[in-house]
Amino acid sequence: MQIILAAIRQQRIPEGARMPSSRVIAEILGISRNTAKRAVEILVEQGVLASRDRSGTYIAVPPHAECADDNPSGSNDTIDWLSRFTLKLNSEFEVPSIRPTHASFLYGQFDASIFPIGRWRECERSALSVTEIQNWGKDVVDEDDPLLIEQLRSEVLPRHGILARPENVLITLGGQQGRYLVSQLFGGSETTSGIEHPCMPDMARMLDLSRTRVRPLALDEGGVILGDQMRGCDTVFLTCGHQCPTTAVMSLERRTALLEQANRDDFVVVEDTFETEIFANGKYPPALKSLPGSERVIHIASLSKLIAPGLRIGYVIAHPSVIAKMRALRRLIHRHPPGNNQRALAMFIERGYYRAFLRRAQAVVAERQETMAAALNLYFPSADWRHCDGASTFWMRVPDGVGGRALAASASARGVLVESGARYFHKDQGRDDHIRLSVSSIVSGRIEDGIRRLAEAHRDVLLGGTGA
Amino acid sequence: MQIILAAIRQQRIPEGARMPSSRVIAEILGISRNTAKRAVEILVEQGVLASRDRSGTYIAVPPHAECADDNPSGSNDTIDWLSRFTLKLNSEFEVPSIRPTHASFLYGQFDASIFPIGRWRECERSALSVTEIQNWGKDVVDEDDPLLIEQLRSEVLPRHGILARPENVLITLGGQQGRYLVSQLFGGSETTSGIEHPCMPDMARMLDLSRTRVRPLALDEGGVILGDQMRGCDTVFLTCGHQCPTTAVMSLERRTALLEQANRDDFVVVEDTFETEIFANGKYPPALKSLPGSERVIHIASLSKLIAPGLRIGYVIAHPSVIAKMRALRRLIHRHPPGNNQRALAMFIERGYYRAFLRRAQAVVAERQETMAAALNLYFPSADWRHCDGASTFWMRVPDGVGGRALAASASARGVLVESGARYFHKDQGRDDHIRLSVSSIVSGRIEDGIRRLAEAHRDVLLGGTGA
Repeated sequence: MQIILAAIRQQRIPEGARMPSSRVIAEILGISRNTAKRAVEILVEQGVLASRDRSGTYIAVPPHAECADDNPSGSNDTIDWLSRFTLKLNSEFEVPSIRPTHASFLYGQFDASIFPIGRWRECERSALSVTEIQNWGKDVVDEDDPLLIEQLRSEVLPRHGILARPENVLITLGGQQGRYLVSQLFGGSETTSGIEHPCMPDMARMLDLSRTRVRPLALDEGGVILGDQMRGCDTVFLTCGHQCPTTAVMSLERRTALLEQANRDDFVVVEDTFETEIFANGKYPPALKSLPGSERVIHIASLSKLIAPGLRIGYVIAHPSVIAKMRALRRLIHRHPPGNNQRALAMFIERGYYRAFLRRAQAVVAERQETMAAALNLYFPSADWRHCDGASTFWMRVPDGVGGRALAASASARGVLVESGARYFHKDQGRDDHIRLSVSSIVSGRIEDGIRRLAEAHRDVLLGGTGA
Repeated sequence: MQIILAAIRQQRIPEGARMPSSRVIAEILGISRNTAKRAVEILVEQGVLASRDRSGTYIAVPPHAECADDNPSGSNDTIDWLSRFTLKLNSEFEVPSIRPTHASFLYGQFDASIFPIGRWRECERSALSVTEIQNWGKDVVDEDDPLLIEQLRSEVLPRHGILARPENVLITLGGQQGRYLVSQLFGGSETTSGIEHPCMPDMARMLDLSRTRVRPLALDEGGVILGDQMRGCDTVFLTCGHQCPTTAVMSLERRTALLEQANRDDFVVVEDTFETEIFANGKYPPALKSLPGSERVIHIASLSKLIAPGLRIGYVIAHPSVIAKMRALRRLIHRHPPGNNQRALAMFIERGYYRAFLRRAQAVVAERQETMAAALNLYFPSADWRHCDGASTFWMRVPDGVGGRALAASASARGVLVESGARYFHKDQGRDDHIRLSVSSIVSGRIEDGIRRLAEAHRDVLLGGTGA
């Protein structure tokens, strides 16, 4: 009984939870079933447990919070887990805490104001019809939804100039999974992988996991600089659509030259497009993967980033033998992406809702970026910030020698969330002079007030206030 | 124009697809925009393309199938992809092709006849309310749905005698992802991992990926044999709930002794439960993870296997530092499982539908396994088959020296799908004398006919007919 009470008090059994049967309790504690039964009866009498007709016994009282021990690992810790982990993996991510604020300029958060809720609901409902459930309910082992593949090929890829057969396409859990699969397949210890500097922090972490040698590649206004620095790479990971985080767009001329060098120097190019769906059609150079000589390009994209990042759907376009290998690895990791979401998204595209949504999202982002640019010019007149038309993010060098981390901390204290740029730089070449601002989840009307508060936070740091 | 035509003919542009804008075409092909425009106009005149008002140009005619080249990799193959893959990964899985049959005894396929479609639809709809979308629509980076965690702790885990705090729980994409994460975290090249022999084929493949030394462990009627063979293992992967594929259930006495040995010999035990949800409450020993001294146990389970495998939801229960590390790795692989399905499932459990569904599924499986046992006794009177009460699978040694692969091939020709047991054996100790039969997706009424046809297929092989 004391053991049961202790478990409840340590909050190992939550309030309202159903108790195991007395037979199970007896076996766990190595006592007789009758003893277990009596203990439960006594606890019911004491009001610790409550019995409900025919559905078992439940925890009645709130756990005694004062008894909960502070060691969440339990009292019998005998295992040195850290020494057992064989994977080189830093679990200390800088995850910004999400809480009520005046303004959030964080990237990639969900924007309920542009989510086409009625239409999405219609598609999920359609995917729940009896015949549709037959299609997605089963464990398809390693296949993708053929309707989604079809819609990608006919509606989504042509916008980027990409022509693909079904065997060129793999559905992934967001762009992130595409990056992971590629880095695992091509990143052995005998290889060299080039990444942009600065670049997406997770990309660098994934490559560390794969044991490849990582070579940071210098950028200029037009994206990664071609030539010597790429020679000797086996694979290069590029965000040429627009570069993350600087937003530089690579010109058609440089794209063509990049492919020529890739062929000459025999490296694979991974084209990570993370946000190009939102770009106005025809305004930007077509995808690398659409150009002649792009056989050695692996194209990674996210579909759900814009609609609802929580859905987690993206895709990879590549040579069939690369897709087959990625599919085999994905199968081992989790078999396939959930079927119902694939089918609902396929219907969303098929019914023209995706195209309508993109038009709306483009208009919204265009309006927000104008407001943002005006606000930055007003409140940070001396700052050097970069932004390409159509991107939802701004990359700003913080003026007056204020560090990015210090500004982010100070802004957070004033209820404004911004991302410090430090984590985008390679660990050996650390810099802390940038912040990254996104308009992906803030309505226009709140932008100017947010940037005004950010300027106040900047002043706070200069005056030695809340800065770290 | 010829290039565009060729692309259509090679089916690289599917019928009905929208063409890129003439500007994009011009850039891809390196021709002037006017030329591209004229080419498109000519193709419209020829009826190859069709123009629709304001929404662009579409492929009008079916692709000329006779022109599609047989080389799906395209004609300009200059890259030796195979030499570039750095991951040891066999992509030749034996994936049974799913097609119309008299009977499918394959494991884990979706059974629409017990899927509670109305109730599941209700929960997905609830998860689509405006406030709920706010909860799951965002990119939560690496968090799980708190409502699902709560429901697991209070409704699901107590059935197995497991008491867990939120920091002991990670939501995964089915049980498969739990296995992958654990094998990556604990399976470095300096380690030894024990697996049952025979065992789940994917488990062995995952361990190969992780570069650990794999040690096959012998079994008896009660599951894995304790003692010497486990000494020196860093981690052992066991399906003691009931063993896959032999269905052996480990007794409480052996479970207790296993934990004692694990503590003495200092190894980690991975408890993979893949199907124990369906077991009648209290009829089987409680989970390893519920027993005293189970700090070093990592518990892996699937939630969606029964409801609808296509949903892909499972969980891991482990020490908080293990969960934190797995969460960090999951984040790199794909951030988090889709939010809408987590929330819908949480509601499904909260409303009592899950418990009702389990009762129904238990009754259905109980009826099917009786029918199956009777049919096997009737048509394979001399066969040695094993099955534990509550399991949906039967493990049968094929009589008369007929190979499992030959029987599966012969049965397939007669419209009956069964799984050869060969892939469950360790590669160095190959055997081909078993098949695995499941009642997870076949209605009672078709079982006897299916087994009758299987017996005919068996006779075919003996007579030298269709066997391989």
